[in-house]
Amino acid sequence: MAPVSERSGPSSKGEATRARILQHALALAARVGLEGISIGELAQDLALSKSGLFAHFGSKEQLQLDVLDLAAEMFRSAVFEPASRAQRGEAKVARIFENLLGWVNDRGHPGGCIFLAGAFEWDDVPGPVRQRVVEWFEKFDAAVARAAQRAVDSGEFRADLDPELFGSELHGIVLKYHLELRLLRNKKAAALARRAFERLLASARR
Amino acid sequence: MAPVSERSGPSSKGEATRARILQHALALAARVGLEGISIGELAQDLALSKSGLFAHFGSKEQLQLDVLDLAAEMFRSAVFEPASRAQRGEAKVARIFENLLGWVNDRGHPGGCIFLAGAFEWDDVPGPVRQRVVEWFEKFDAAVARAAQRAVDSGEFRADLDPELFGSELHGIVLKYHLELRLLRNKKAAALARRAFERLLASARR
Repeated sequence: MAPVSERSGPSSKGEATRARILQHALALAARVGLEGISIGELAQDLALSKSGLFAHFGSKEQLQLDVLDLAAEMFRSAVFEPASRAQRGEAKVARIFENLLGWVNDRGHPGGCIFLAGAFEWDDVPGPVRQRVVEWFEKFDAAVARAAQRAVDSGEFRADLDPELFGSELHGIVLKYHLELRLLRNKKAAALARRAFERLLASARR
Repeated sequence: MAPVSERSGPSSKGEATRARILQHALALAARVGLEGISIGELAQDLALSKSGLFAHFGSKEQLQLDVLDLAAEMFRSAVFEPASRAQRGEAKVARIFENLLGWVNDRGHPGGCIFLAGAFEWDDVPGPVRQRVVEWFEKFDAAVARAAQRAVDSGEFRADLDPELFGSELHGIVLKYHLELRLLRNKKAAALARRAFERLLASARR
């Protein structure tokens, strides 16, 4: 029987390289778009051979999909995981909203949210990458609507609240925040977003 | 003295070609982004020489700026001009909103709104193109806020309404609509957007 520690041998080294490639590809994609990722540029930046780099993914499309999956995992850790430790109901919804502002503002991905960049880059390009972006947004909207529904269940939000509409309005506030912060560099971006969200919360309460 | 009709001679022909190039470049940019515009591809599509095409603009950057100006003019005609003939006050705000949904949904620019595409493409790329996109969004937001302020002045909207916040919330609804319609192809996109806007209007009324 192979000892567990063998897992930290060659396979683990391969995984570390793969993770390093993905991290770098994500940073590149946030700047130039998923389509703008160049295997040659990645290989040069990371001092790897193109063929060696390619062997980790098999195709540029697979690399793009894996980059999206990495971003989805980072998003989950940054936005939903901390909120799951918060209170339920309105407090949780408010925590998710604040975490979203933090995600958009994160210096760790200077190109802005890769899903939003992807939304505009891939909306007219059929295929698996577009599909992955679509699924991500659908899951995100469903998760926000679910959090709103829980606040209805707990009696904090109105019984007749439409959780889907609430989630849609919350999402719109975050989209506008992204534009104000990243493109317009408006110093009031966060204040505007929080005031809009406070109005949304107030209208949702019983 | 040169007769006025000379204006319809060579210069007018040159202008017609220039207009034709810009229209085509706009359609291309809506699909592949402003940076993705290729002089070579444009020249081939329009059966012009690359140097002939280049002579109309002098640089790719000038072509990008002119494409944005053309889009701005089309946007003004589609969104603000029809609204200026509508009633003042809330009716005008509502007309602008409906025209915005129409703009996002227009089959005439199948790649979606070029300003939004530009917002995500150019947010981290300093220079005149980014600056033009920024100015366009600032003007747009100011125009919406002005329309809301007029509805305050006419007594239809609350005296304590913040027109900037109102405009920001309206803009967020339109951004979410773009995402729902173009990326997610949600059949309920327009219904969701209109319900969110109706709630915004209701909260703005006296």
